[in-house]
Amino acid sequence: MNTLDQYRTLFNQALEQWTPPDHPRTLYEPVRYILDLGGKRLRPVLVLMAAEISGGRAEDAMGPAMAIEWFHNFSLLHDDIMDQAALRRGKPTVHEFFSPNAAILSGDVMLVDAFRFISQVQPALFPELLDRFSRMAVEVCQGQQLDMDFEQRLNVTRSEYLEMIRLKTAVLLGCSLYCGARTGGATVEQAESLYKFGEQLGLAFQLRDDLLDTYGDPDKFGKHVGGDILQDKKTYLLIHALETATPEDHRMLMSWVGRGGEGPAATPTGTTATDPGQSKPAQPASQAKIAAVRAVFDRSRTRQAAESAIHDHHTRALEALALAGLSSANENVLRDLAEEMLVREQ
Amino acid sequence: MNTLDQYRTLFNQALEQWTPPDHPRTLYEPVRYILDLGGKRLRPVLVLMAAEISGGRAEDAMGPAMAIEWFHNFSLLHDDIMDQAALRRGKPTVHEFFSPNAAILSGDVMLVDAFRFISQVQPALFPELLDRFSRMAVEVCQGQQLDMDFEQRLNVTRSEYLEMIRLKTAVLLGCSLYCGARTGGATVEQAESLYKFGEQLGLAFQLRDDLLDTYGDPDKFGKHVGGDILQDKKTYLLIHALETATPEDHRMLMSWVGRGGEGPAATPTGTTATDPGQSKPAQPASQAKIAAVRAVFDRSRTRQAAESAIHDHHTRALEALALAGLSSANENVLRDLAEEMLVREQ
Repeated sequence: MNTLDQYRTLFNQALEQWTPPDHPRTLYEPVRYILDLGGKRLRPVLVLMAAEISGGRAEDAMGPAMAIEWFHNFSLLHDDIMDQAALRRGKPTVHEFFSPNAAILSGDVMLVDAFRFISQVQPALFPELLDRFSRMAVEVCQGQQLDMDFEQRLNVTRSEYLEMIRLKTAVLLGCSLYCGARTGGATVEQAESLYKFGEQLGLAFQLRDDLLDTYGDPDKFGKHVGGDILQDKKTYLLIHALETATPEDHRMLMSWVGRGGEGPAATPTGTTATDPGQSKPAQPASQAKIAAVRAVFDRSRTRQAAESAIHDHHTRALEALALAGLSSANENVLRDLAEEMLVREQ
Repeated sequence: MNTLDQYRTLFNQALEQWTPPDHPRTLYEPVRYILDLGGKRLRPVLVLMAAEISGGRAEDAMGPAMAIEWFHNFSLLHDDIMDQAALRRGKPTVHEFFSPNAAILSGDVMLVDAFRFISQVQPALFPELLDRFSRMAVEVCQGQQLDMDFEQRLNVTRSEYLEMIRLKTAVLLGCSLYCGARTGGATVEQAESLYKFGEQLGLAFQLRDDLLDTYGDPDKFGKHVGGDILQDKKTYLLIHALETATPEDHRMLMSWVGRGGEGPAATPTGTTATDPGQSKPAQPASQAKIAAVRAVFDRSRTRQAAESAIHDHHTRALEALALAGLSSANENVLRDLAEEMLVREQ
């Protein structure tokens, strides 16, 4: 078995060997740009790892690994436009650095090329993997739509939120493991178990992301801690607090939500973010909002609820993993991966 | 053999039976909207027709027909954003009526669903059709990119332009015939001949579109005649004139290009489109520009050059068709279709 780093190296080597068509240059420059932003390559690593765990060779799963990474980057290109994100991994997003049109069209060609990569498997597997992959792709679109829909609503429930992150994030991890496992020789049943493992792991991972954004170590998250609160993002934390807070705390939350870094609606401060003479919300107001919202979270035991939900999904992931019929050595590789993703400080 | 209208009816019936997932509604409403704008359904009709001409049943080619129509509408959704088009078939475009985000994401899900539809064929054909379809899809993205790149350039050559419209428009017609023919039982060689027929037909059809925009019957095109000239669109006509005009005519063309409905650069008029007090270019200025540019076209024999190019591609289309080994009755069906598309006044 390779280590995570070795799988990542293997994948990055394949990525370096990939040469885009040289024409039109303007179509493929943004593709190269987003791929070169790097990252942990978690999803293709899962594909390669699942192939080896299932008795195959990682190299033989490179087609699906590329397909998954291409699809992931297509979704980043388009989501960043829709979310009006200025930065990704500390660099300007494609729609900022090139143009929105470039991000749309280069995203489109990445989505098409993902379908070309997924076809680079044994012919007998091709229809099955294409079906699985395309169903996942539809689900990710549905998840992104729900995420945007939820921005317009305050009454989102926890189960609606979990379904949204399942579609937007978790099914891609499940699909990565499924495609890798089948390529490596796993039965459909074994691959389904690994799919469920990946799906539950993805849910837990996203919930942990929500948690760390508010409660992460400031030394590691720095100024980003509290970003979700400032943006009124409907995370698991905010939804839990809105669902469970006392009437008084609920009113307090509502007075802050929708006002960016400003003071609460009921207590206007002298200088607000909408003051035309001021380009940024005052830092103290931001800190006041983070502190006030976090105080409601604390009183609602929201942190504990999120930790408990992460633990639940982690447990369900391990239950699914146990049904995959792997050797205990191989099972431990995936247990360690889950541990790495969910427990150790990132 | 069915008539064109019968194929269209058959396809529209299948389209009515298609029910989108009901969740999330916001994702599928724009899909329904663009499909309901209607149109001649030329591309899926070509799929069904090619299947029957090749000895199969039109119904068995419904998967590829839906795939082609879904792909076509995906490209309309995204191209309309990129081209900032306000209207399509006289109705607001999706990005205007819903939002740019809706047009991006609903376009994405249509592209994914196109790949799901193309898989609804005999399993033995599936890898081949998916390969063909995905190569076509990459080419259409390349064509759209070239089209946008050309907007920034004045030195586009006729052969570059032809390559752009081949990629953006013609390969989709070729692919429609190829997929239909193979589904209906044609050999690869026969299907390749029909592909070339469709490709050449598509080139001729786009050139004719360019021609009619400037020289069409105003009773049929009404106020749209001259639209390409007013928008400085780099059509075959403008490119030909820029390549072949006398130095004096070239200077005159250049003085008009890039100035919308305004007067030529060298002769500023009192009231221009950039006058902040005026929301539209003055109608007489628009008419003056159309007349002046058309006069250069006439002196450069641009209309004749375009007619000759249409004739060339029409001829090449029929040459490819003759190699498809069809019965003369079936060959005539496609000859008539080409005639219908290229000769009769639309």
